[in-house]
Amino acid sequence: MAVDDATADVAAILILACCRNVIAASDNLRLGRFRNGLTMGTDPQGKVLGIVGAGGIGRTLAKRMSGFDLEKIQYYNRHRLSTEVEEKYNMTYVDFETLLNTSDIISIHCPHTPQTTHLLDYKEFTMMKKGVIIVNTARGKIINEGALVKALERGQVLAAGLDVFEQEPVVHPGLLSHPRCVLLPHIGTFTGESQYKMEKLVLDNLEEAIERNSLLTPVPEHSKFFNK
Amino acid sequence: MAVDDATADVAAILILACCRNVIAASDNLRLGRFRNGLTMGTDPQGKVLGIVGAGGIGRTLAKRMSGFDLEKIQYYNRHRLSTEVEEKYNMTYVDFETLLNTSDIISIHCPHTPQTTHLLDYKEFTMMKKGVIIVNTARGKIINEGALVKALERGQVLAAGLDVFEQEPVVHPGLLSHPRCVLLPHIGTFTGESQYKMEKLVLDNLEEAIERNSLLTPVPEHSKFFNK
Repeated sequence: MAVDDATADVAAILILACCRNVIAASDNLRLGRFRNGLTMGTDPQGKVLGIVGAGGIGRTLAKRMSGFDLEKIQYYNRHRLSTEVEEKYNMTYVDFETLLNTSDIISIHCPHTPQTTHLLDYKEFTMMKKGVIIVNTARGKIINEGALVKALERGQVLAAGLDVFEQEPVVHPGLLSHPRCVLLPHIGTFTGESQYKMEKLVLDNLEEAIERNSLLTPVPEHSKFFNK
Repeated sequence: MAVDDATADVAAILILACCRNVIAASDNLRLGRFRNGLTMGTDPQGKVLGIVGAGGIGRTLAKRMSGFDLEKIQYYNRHRLSTEVEEKYNMTYVDFETLLNTSDIISIHCPHTPQTTHLLDYKEFTMMKKGVIIVNTARGKIINEGALVKALERGQVLAAGLDVFEQEPVVHPGLLSHPRCVLLPHIGTFTGESQYKMEKLVLDNLEEAIERNSLLTPVPEHSKFFNK
């Protein structure tokens, strides 16, 4: 899909920036304090990455992180992937509860549906390892931001890397003020190359619709308008 | 080596943060402008990465970036690596001039010696592709910062990601004020795990010296004090 690569890149950036405290480090330097008073980071090496949603973006993230010597990449998905795909991406299937219990880093890559609204809520944060890193490049409403802020404040969550928010462009003040949040303004696909790929996909779909009464990338809502 | 992993991680972070304009994006959000006025990023995918210095850190960077669908990873080193090592890390040897001419991203991983002082100077920047990204996690004096600032100002260099500086902790004002610089306060090994590994290596060397009159990681300056 047109958006997989660039969005997975942002998820990788957020994971690494949370591990290494990059925004605080950059701020510290720009304030003239260099490394004084800066909190030490942690290595991604040896960590367990849990991917929620193993579609194109989740799988691409597994590929991106394959060179970082993680202990393990595990995933939860509504439908378990084929053994072939699991082996290709070196991803291990676990149920959702196990993913919450055992991941050092949790990255969200499922669609936003009524079922995934507040998928990570007060209860889910209490089930996680202390010091977990949370990354979301999917949709803001999948995480209850109030619950995330509480989990950050009590140290259950070490750091959060977010490219999406519940009420974009409004960002929860508890996230804005937390020193271990890395917050990006929904730049998942904000690259020249991705914008080109997305525009081309729209035009190719239009051509397919006009010339062949079909679509290249149909969604269920479209089915009644087309032959196939 | 104790420091390879964490330093290579910072190089990877700087490459990705420069590509995706992460600091400017984070600043924009925190200033309440969300994505308004933000410059679009570029994908690492399809780019040529040039690694200067293929010791432990340079090789580990090649491994870290192996999942990002780069076009090619090329390197320059005083001594060409064995075919075995080149294949293991999927790195192609090129001479220094070719590396400068053909890389989209150049990352510095050589030691600082009299020979590598200002290895990247006014002349070298003019030899690079327009829009190159420069990353340095090695030593500040390997790059002439004045020359880098000029190259940034005229757009020859798109972005620079620096963890080291010529006069640490002083940072060149032309770097501080440039919107496409990602500047970190020498946090290459600033993680709990790396500090532990480095301290343990010191203690293991002391033990080796006292008990076996030798060193685990000797440097030439030590040779006259030990039997082997």
